[in-house]
Amino acid sequence: MKELLYEGKAKRLYATEDEQVVLVEYKDSATAFNGQKKAEIAGKGKLNNEITSLLFLKLKENGIDSHFIKRVSENEQLVKKVAIIPLEVVVRNVAAGSLSKRLGIEEGAPLTAPIVEFYLKNDELGDPLVTVDHIYELKVASASEIAILREKALQIDKVLTDFFADLGIRLIDFKLEFGKDQDGQILLADEISPDTCRLWDKQTNEKLDKDVFRRDLGSLTEAYEKILEKLGGHQHV
Amino acid sequence: MKELLYEGKAKRLYATEDEQVVLVEYKDSATAFNGQKKAEIAGKGKLNNEITSLLFLKLKENGIDSHFIKRVSENEQLVKKVAIIPLEVVVRNVAAGSLSKRLGIEEGAPLTAPIVEFYLKNDELGDPLVTVDHIYELKVASASEIAILREKALQIDKVLTDFFADLGIRLIDFKLEFGKDQDGQILLADEISPDTCRLWDKQTNEKLDKDVFRRDLGSLTEAYEKILEKLGGHQHV
Repeated sequence: MKELLYEGKAKRLYATEDEQVVLVEYKDSATAFNGQKKAEIAGKGKLNNEITSLLFLKLKENGIDSHFIKRVSENEQLVKKVAIIPLEVVVRNVAAGSLSKRLGIEEGAPLTAPIVEFYLKNDELGDPLVTVDHIYELKVASASEIAILREKALQIDKVLTDFFADLGIRLIDFKLEFGKDQDGQILLADEISPDTCRLWDKQTNEKLDKDVFRRDLGSLTEAYEKILEKLGGHQHV
Repeated sequence: MKELLYEGKAKRLYATEDEQVVLVEYKDSATAFNGQKKAEIAGKGKLNNEITSLLFLKLKENGIDSHFIKRVSENEQLVKKVAIIPLEVVVRNVAAGSLSKRLGIEEGAPLTAPIVEFYLKNDELGDPLVTVDHIYELKVASASEIAILREKALQIDKVLTDFFADLGIRLIDFKLEFGKDQDGQILLADEISPDTCRLWDKQTNEKLDKDVFRRDLGSLTEAYEKILEKLGGHQHV
């Protein structure tokens, strides 16, 4: 009987025999708009488990460490135990979603330079955008930690943007989470998948990410399968 | 016949014989929630004209220049012509209003250090909070200009906080606007009044600012009169 440590919207975390290692189970749940829209989508969990694993390995090859250890089953991966920093770190290359709404920039307009945003991980408050001053006040990260998060996020953006471009996909924006390991080292954590990225087909601008679910644009698993296929993963079709 | 250059929610700007000088007329209009709540409040214009004049003079005494030249009638003041930078610069010493809502901090809780926020002046977008990255993307201010705005805002906070404290008033937060004069110099502009500050009586925590109107707490002019009286201005009662 596995000990459940935490259950989030898309994943369950279980203890393992090694105190520093956690088993992550990817669920088939899809949620959007801070949990207001929900669905069970068979096959989503294994797709995100495999996509995340491939992307964490790709980042590792490029010198960017994460909490990822290895994928151990269709829906599960082992990760290093970290204390999650309660910030969503968003990197944007092209205007879309809340940025388009906030700044009145048309969706699809390329940005002059990548924008890094921080959102407080707090469902009750609706994950609000926060500034550096807000982060200091909340004491969720220090100035040097914010600088590290920003630098790592931009490094990851560079690697993933080039990687996806070679596969015919535009990386529009994505959300990262980081954690601290037992030595206090900041490590990339959580997941990187079509749940947490906007990915558009370079030729057709077809959306291959969670906006398919948010905006009712068709089959989410078909879109995620396309991403997995381009990444060279197993085909589940 | 004065040439109207611009009409805002609370003020009208007129041309003068000197191209570098503008006449500001303070209106009796009160608005809140991005113009959704409105009223005409007799006497408000002259109160804010006088309070703003006194505060700009106080800042001048402390080495902080503004666009203010002189008050010329009950409702009017002359100011130097500037091109307004489309950012609202908010300084907060105590949690209140949108900060309390955004971060879940109880209204009235002192902040560890003053927080400076930037909001895009754009009624259509609802004056959204923007980060430094957003400001770069919108090209409304450069990195060095943002640094100047921040530094000036914190200087002004220091002067006004001490000044109001001596009068038995807590300066909770306030909104500033800045402009560039014809030499490109950044100058404090717009107004500083109970319309743009939160001011609480130090003993009773009574609100002596626009929250009286926003939250239907009583007579706005009585509150503004109290501020003017403490500032040593004329009594209109």
